[in-house]
Amino acid sequence: MEDKEYQELKNRFDEIAIYSSTSALLGWDQETNIPKKALNYRAEQCAFLGAKAHSLFIDSEVEGWIGACEENKQIDDPFKLANIREWRWSYNRGRDISPEFVAESEKVRSLAMPAWAEARAKDDFKIFQSHLEKIVEINQRKTECYGFEEHPYDALIEGFERGATTKSIGDLFDGLKSPLKEIGELAKNKSAGVSSQLIQGDYSVESQMLFNEAIAKSFGFDFEAGRIDTAVHPFCSGIAPGDTRMTTRYDTSDFMSSLYGVLHETGHGLYEQGLPIDHFSCPVGKAVSLGIHESQSRLWENHVGRNPSFWERWYPKAIEIFPSMKNLGVDQIIEYCLRSEPSHIRVEADEATYDLHIILRFEIERDLIAGDLKVADLPEAWNAKFKEFFGITVNNFAEGCLQDIHWSMGAIGYFPTYTIGNLAAAQLFHKAKEEYPEIGSCFLDVDYKNLLEWLRNNVHSKGSLLLPEDLIKEVTGESLTTKYHLDHLRERYG
Amino acid sequence: MEDKEYQELKNRFDEIAIYSSTSALLGWDQETNIPKKALNYRAEQCAFLGAKAHSLFIDSEVEGWIGACEENKQIDDPFKLANIREWRWSYNRGRDISPEFVAESEKVRSLAMPAWAEARAKDDFKIFQSHLEKIVEINQRKTECYGFEEHPYDALIEGFERGATTKSIGDLFDGLKSPLKEIGELAKNKSAGVSSQLIQGDYSVESQMLFNEAIAKSFGFDFEAGRIDTAVHPFCSGIAPGDTRMTTRYDTSDFMSSLYGVLHETGHGLYEQGLPIDHFSCPVGKAVSLGIHESQSRLWENHVGRNPSFWERWYPKAIEIFPSMKNLGVDQIIEYCLRSEPSHIRVEADEATYDLHIILRFEIERDLIAGDLKVADLPEAWNAKFKEFFGITVNNFAEGCLQDIHWSMGAIGYFPTYTIGNLAAAQLFHKAKEEYPEIGSCFLDVDYKNLLEWLRNNVHSKGSLLLPEDLIKEVTGESLTTKYHLDHLRERYG
Repeated sequence: MEDKEYQELKNRFDEIAIYSSTSALLGWDQETNIPKKALNYRAEQCAFLGAKAHSLFIDSEVEGWIGACEENKQIDDPFKLANIREWRWSYNRGRDISPEFVAESEKVRSLAMPAWAEARAKDDFKIFQSHLEKIVEINQRKTECYGFEEHPYDALIEGFERGATTKSIGDLFDGLKSPLKEIGELAKNKSAGVSSQLIQGDYSVESQMLFNEAIAKSFGFDFEAGRIDTAVHPFCSGIAPGDTRMTTRYDTSDFMSSLYGVLHETGHGLYEQGLPIDHFSCPVGKAVSLGIHESQSRLWENHVGRNPSFWERWYPKAIEIFPSMKNLGVDQIIEYCLRSEPSHIRVEADEATYDLHIILRFEIERDLIAGDLKVADLPEAWNAKFKEFFGITVNNFAEGCLQDIHWSMGAIGYFPTYTIGNLAAAQLFHKAKEEYPEIGSCFLDVDYKNLLEWLRNNVHSKGSLLLPEDLIKEVTGESLTTKYHLDHLRERYG
Repeated sequence: MEDKEYQELKNRFDEIAIYSSTSALLGWDQETNIPKKALNYRAEQCAFLGAKAHSLFIDSEVEGWIGACEENKQIDDPFKLANIREWRWSYNRGRDISPEFVAESEKVRSLAMPAWAEARAKDDFKIFQSHLEKIVEINQRKTECYGFEEHPYDALIEGFERGATTKSIGDLFDGLKSPLKEIGELAKNKSAGVSSQLIQGDYSVESQMLFNEAIAKSFGFDFEAGRIDTAVHPFCSGIAPGDTRMTTRYDTSDFMSSLYGVLHETGHGLYEQGLPIDHFSCPVGKAVSLGIHESQSRLWENHVGRNPSFWERWYPKAIEIFPSMKNLGVDQIIEYCLRSEPSHIRVEADEATYDLHIILRFEIERDLIAGDLKVADLPEAWNAKFKEFFGITVNNFAEGCLQDIHWSMGAIGYFPTYTIGNLAAAQLFHKAKEEYPEIGSCFLDVDYKNLLEWLRNNVHSKGSLLLPEDLIKEVTGESLTTKYHLDHLRERYG
């Protein structure tokens, strides 16, 4: 048989996928359902299954199979070749990570998360400081195991965004800073007359569910292969073939918060549901990167969901489901959805100011990993940068450097993917409009259908066939650029 | 170290417990949440994890460790000795079951379940017949692997009820048949004036949840270590330490159906929450048998929940939550909860007629496994026996031999545990009343507390320390007997 070793790898990854999909369900359950007293054992389950998957992968047999595949010139299927490319990359990256190190990292993480929550609640950075020091140190050790060429932070970024480097991201972000500040000013002035209380009312959770699900369904989310649940932290998880689960949270005085959360997660969900299912267990069957994943959520959330035509389409349904909205006109709702002003909390930031939050975190992470910034000096550095970027003062840790969960989870190098997602969303959407011009200004259900089909063909169905940068180039004809995102923001806010 | 091999076994069972608790969560999720298109992959996950746990157990190293423990006279802790006893029993029982046979059984099961559902929906036994033939045949092969002394059905029963045999159960059941028929007649006459439509109304799911949870909580169910969800088939699953989940289903025209479901599952849940948590991964930390498990659910459902004093305690709360009930007096509600008449569906049967449904299934299963009854002749045998037991005619397969899910799941030998549960419930409750006489007729919250404490001390905290029959004898001073159950039914319906 020409590809015996390939089959061995495939079988091994079928087995690993059982562990990882099971872990994904445990993770989803932990955020949506788990009783408080089950948390400790759940941590043990996750650590065990994670270590099991890792040791099945770093097994020396695996390296032999990968080597044989690389030398086997009879393998010419592009999906198989992409798997071999990704297996090699992951193997080289992971082989020096020992099961003991995995266990140590898990332990640090599991202690850091409650410490972060406590520090945030008590507004006392000291409670979290020593944990964050360990997390930075563990990540620095990881960069040595993974290896890097120029900057140690490269090794971490690449785990979330294959092919990206500190320099490539730094260059993009440097080109964004001053235009974003300028757009932010314009957006703030434009929003001056719009009250942030405009849509405050009494919206039952059931009505919100009804509205959110109707829209997710019309975007193309398949509820026979997925669901929406309630969780403190909204997320979307592609658990298994036919099983994509998103979450949202409800504010009964403001239905927009859960609505835009669902539009965002639906973008992630549509990507997961469109991945090549036959390759589920292998790298090529997975999303190509977190940045491209985020591009899908941003596209549906902002380019579709904040497009004025979205509200022209959904206004009648909205006032049917939420009768108290009847005193608001569609123009007011559109203005409300586009209002902008500098604010402290990233996850609540508007489209015009969001990326500055990310650039700030990128610069801080980069300096922490390089050793140029000490954890002890983080609050001061954060607050100074915040004043510089947004012109406003940080009043406490919860609205400052303790606001995000990522670092307590051990994730450093993740944040940049949010802005990469914004850039890619604008670039992809611009391209899609060339093929279907009407989707730019008119969101009938048929437009959703056309847009989804375009994304399915150009992005989703490819999985990890290409590296992220090559995917963007192949689909749009250009490397990832800030141009379309800035054009989009200028058009909306300028 | 005096018990090195014991520690090896303990470590092995800690690992097996990760697999089995994870499988339990997958199973719960399958009944409560799973999207339709995820079912196929879920079956693969469950089969893989099940086979993994089984192969970790039948490993020859395990037998060596068990043998060494059996010879190690320094081990004298009763919990450890019980583990060694159970490990030996399970090992001898399971060692001839090959992973291939496990896989084959899983396949037969997974094909049989949808065939059963289709056969039931289309009222066509033929659709299910060949599947059931395979299931009977697989179970017959299992009896050979497990081994038995007198009757092949013994080998199957024992998997659900350690120590029980076809003869011991047959003797008990033979002693029940005619008294039950007699009590059934009395109960039917007593209920003649009570309309089965009495409490029909409009009860929102939210109100029902509120009422059910208030009662489960007052019985002692710990919601920080468990939850109640919605599922088509009500069940309770002790998933992991601190994680006991029950389910119910709601009928908005009749709150009693979900209420008594929840009371029943709360009994199971209290048992799970009271098991010796430190021994979670080992046999002694598990429920001793399905019969004893069922005794806990029947005790809370029938001896507490159908006791007239239950409604005296909860009537004010009920009319507060369900205002439409105000036109019913407490006496009417009590009469309604005790009404009885012969009916076709086991899961909807009342307390007075329930056991005859079980005895019927026991006799049929016994004959199928012995080869005395052919699957092709099952419908005729069922219908004839039904007429004999209940005096009513079976009109279709859904109200006849296709009503239960158990056989399609491959479970034969399970049914008798329902009646064992009824007998044990009455016997245990009788004994508890000797210690706390007031619980017999007055269910204040303090009585629930005393009853739970008595069950915790005498049943729950012992896990599988004793075999079921020895547990009953130690706690009540007698072997399992039909006496207390019949006394209870006579008192209630005579």
